[in-house]
Amino acid sequence: MADLMNNDVFLAFSTYATIVVLKMMFMAPLTGYFRVTRKAFSNWEDTAMGKKNPEERKKMLQTNPDVERVRRCHQNDLENIIPFVVIGLLYAFTGPDLSTALLHFRVFVGSRFIHTVSYILALPQPSRGLSWMVGMITTFSMAYRVLTTALLL
Amino acid sequence: MADLMNNDVFLAFSTYATIVVLKMMFMAPLTGYFRVTRKAFSNWEDTAMGKKNPEERKKMLQTNPDVERVRRCHQNDLENIIPFVVIGLLYAFTGPDLSTALLHFRVFVGSRFIHTVSYILALPQPSRGLSWMVGMITTFSMAYRVLTTALLL
Amino acid sequence: MADLMNNDVFLAFSTYATIVVLKMMFMAPLTGYFRVTRKAFSNWEDTAMGKKNPEERKKMLQTNPDVERVRRCHQNDLENIIPFVVIGLLYAFTGPDLSTALLHFRVFVGSRFIHTVSYILALPQPSRGLSWMVGMITTFSMAYRVLTTALLL
Repeated sequence: MADLMNNDVFLAFSTYATIVVLKMMFMAPLTGYFRVTRKAFSNWEDTAMGKKNPEERKKMLQTNPDVERVRRCHQNDLENIIPFVVIGLLYAFTGPDLSTALLHFRVFVGSRFIHTVSYILALPQPSRGLSWMVGMITTFSMAYRVLTTALLL
Repeated sequence: MADLMNNDVFLAFSTYATIVVLKMMFMAPLTGYFRVTRKAFSNWEDTAMGKKNPEERKKMLQTNPDVERVRRCHQNDLENIIPFVVIGLLYAFTGPDLSTALLHFRVFVGSRFIHTVSYILALPQPSRGLSWMVGMITTFSMAYRVLTTALLL
Repeated sequence: MADLMNNDVFLAFSTYATIVVLKMMFMAPLTGYFRVTRKAFSNWEDTAMGKKNPEERKKMLQTNPDVERVRRCHQNDLENIIPFVVIGLLYAFTGPDLSTALLHFRVFVGSRFIHTVSYILALPQPSRGLSWMVGMITTFSMAYRVLTTALLL
């Protein structure tokens, strides 16, 4: 174990993976914020804040464009950050140069922060599309190294 | 490799991570159970059970509140259990005390079981909200240790 | 670290996990392909391709059965491939025979490719259901070994 914590690439991976997973987790309270301010819930039991009569509560079981936007952003995080974490961990074990590894981790994590801002603020394309693609390419680059270094079919 | 299997914190992590991922996987057959009993499917090819005429089959392409509830619970599992697994693995490598690590793993896994029961049975809030928050805080606590122990930006 | 890259089971896991995660990532451009060809988008800013007037753009904010099918397939990948990756990694650390491990990894990855083809082409059941179940059973089998080898509650 101590071995791993003395490996700089593994430390860097731990740092960036934790940061980007925390960013992903932050989408949950953000969804909650929009649900409360937009009064848009999915579950009947969530509409009981304060003393509401059933009619008012029923109206709160609605979809809202702002809530749906945050949820799509959260889903996109799941679809992209999890592959990064899996492939990034295996990549760290292939023993890349620290500077090359740091470049991959920084570009990926940076691209996901830009992606989130682009998505939530609905910035004009291709800001969101481009940041998504940069993240994908970074993960592909690490996957290429894993497959060329560790291939055992 | 043998090294890792001699490390108690890693063994504990393996045990709890496997249990909570199995719990998450259980949401799939539960969704299937509600789809069949509520006759609510998303795919045309899934409605061909028994000898059904096209009219009857078309009616089965519907959404159902019970099915949607299980699916939201499954989605919430993905959004929370995966961060726990990623950050928990890195946390195990930071060499925490076994008792502290066990406390984190037990509280998290317990909170997710309570969350699932609260969600599926639609228990009044804040049972679901509180169990969700306990899980989040546990993961944050482990992420804090990872970032303070392994920080390399 | 070098230790891990000399372990054949870990190399095999790295190979198959990377392949199946890449397959999962491929669902994103496939969704994009269907969104563009079916003109079905979720975000207003995505409809600005070419010089479109607002009326035309508004019409493109629609759901489309082909897009929804790919998205369900992607979601099913998240729900099944991530548990495989987590439990498969822990399983690799339990020191199984290489041939047994390869059998698990090959069956799982094969089942997910069949699942994707069955889903996207809407092949009649039980092709999709069966391939899904084979993947689940493979993951359960690995989880069983993890829990019997590494149990520390």
